[in-house]
Amino acid sequence: MDASSASAPSTSEARPRRAGYRRLPVEQRREQLIAVALELFAARAPEEVGLDDVAEAAGASRPLVYRYFAGGKQQLYEAALRSAAEELTSRFTVPLTGTPTAQLAAVLDRYFAFVAEHDAGYAALLRGGSVVETAGTSAIVDEVRRAALKRTLRHLGVREAGARLTLLVRSWIAVVEGASLTWLDGDRTVPVTELRDWLVDQFVAMAAATALGDPQTAEVLAGLLALEGPDDSRAARLRALLAPDA
Amino acid sequence: MDASSASAPSTSEARPRRAGYRRLPVEQRREQLIAVALELFAARAPEEVGLDDVAEAAGASRPLVYRYFAGGKQQLYEAALRSAAEELTSRFTVPLTGTPTAQLAAVLDRYFAFVAEHDAGYAALLRGGSVVETAGTSAIVDEVRRAALKRTLRHLGVREAGARLTLLVRSWIAVVEGASLTWLDGDRTVPVTELRDWLVDQFVAMAAATALGDPQTAEVLAGLLALEGPDDSRAARLRALLAPDA
Repeated sequence: MDASSASAPSTSEARPRRAGYRRLPVEQRREQLIAVALELFAARAPEEVGLDDVAEAAGASRPLVYRYFAGGKQQLYEAALRSAAEELTSRFTVPLTGTPTAQLAAVLDRYFAFVAEHDAGYAALLRGGSVVETAGTSAIVDEVRRAALKRTLRHLGVREAGARLTLLVRSWIAVVEGASLTWLDGDRTVPVTELRDWLVDQFVAMAAATALGDPQTAEVLAGLLALEGPDDSRAARLRALLAPDA
Repeated sequence: MDASSASAPSTSEARPRRAGYRRLPVEQRREQLIAVALELFAARAPEEVGLDDVAEAAGASRPLVYRYFAGGKQQLYEAALRSAAEELTSRFTVPLTGTPTAQLAAVLDRYFAFVAEHDAGYAALLRGGSVVETAGTSAIVDEVRRAALKRTLRHLGVREAGARLTLLVRSWIAVVEGASLTWLDGDRTVPVTELRDWLVDQFVAMAAATALGDPQTAEVLAGLLALEGPDDSRAARLRALLAPDA
């Protein structure tokens, strides 16, 4: 990065060098640059996005971008990532009505919409080995995972999760992430609605396997299945598949 | 890295600068440096391992290390990682006798032994955001995952896996990885033998949930459960937990 000497953003912008640059208030410009960067980083791998691309798409000059993000592309990437992480975390809110699995399905729908919107950038981030990946970006991703864990446990009505229940929920979150990457990677052979139902079933099945050895998970699972109501045939079909003569 | 001009290893070594340096044949020295590096990278995060540490632990000089690894620490790290990946992949071999779940358990035991041996380095690698992480190191990790996928499918007697069965096995491998990280992270609250049994149960449960919507997985699961024999009580207990009045 060659512009680390750029000064912090001031309340007025540099004189536009080319006609067509628009003056924007500081906070608005900052947000605009982050939004534009997020759009570019979502569409392409971080390696393929340059600071000039961001400047051009924002209708700004390169020095102006550096005035807001003295750390250059890396800082802009982290700001965009933080903004995306906040948006994703806000989607974890569970709807107030419906059975537990219907609520889980609704959250997953929102999650997959986010994944589709952030496509290439999301894949590059989770896949690792990217040039912009640092301890800082990993920390942001981990924060989102922790938020997902916390929200899921709260959804299950758990105050203090033991090691096994925590492992279950963390593992399921890893399965959700992996499934979304497979979905992006492939030709999207498996429709997203099927993938969402599959993940709900995985949660129930993984909880059952954990409940085998953990009373806390057994209690959570029993409560969840009781709320599903008598017309839930999926648990019954799961049982049938585990029968030795299936 | 300041020694990129170092020449390739020749058949004789540089004259030892300090008493105590041992002369070793080229290939043996190369392997020794990799083994020493692997040991250091296993015990600490990559950030905390310097080339001098490797040289000292190998009883070699810094210039000698550069003669073998002109790319310095990054190249040495990748060579050590590749060596570890080969070792891990070799552990995926499934024993010839036992029920399918017993065979799976045996492979998991070998995997956890590997994880324990490579402790901090394994965690740093899989957690991401490390300074030595590149597209190259990610590719090595992905290669191991692909080998695990291939080996598991072969173990299940599958020649051509459809999208859903592939997703199942990939997801389970992600759960195995995540579980091993949780195990390393925590105070190892959950004993490794319990963790291994939990992962075997997860495989059966996740396969059952996938079989709900995929005939190929249903066939594989039925074959697997048939081989478990009549004294397998775990599938029966899983069924009971999925009963609505459990």
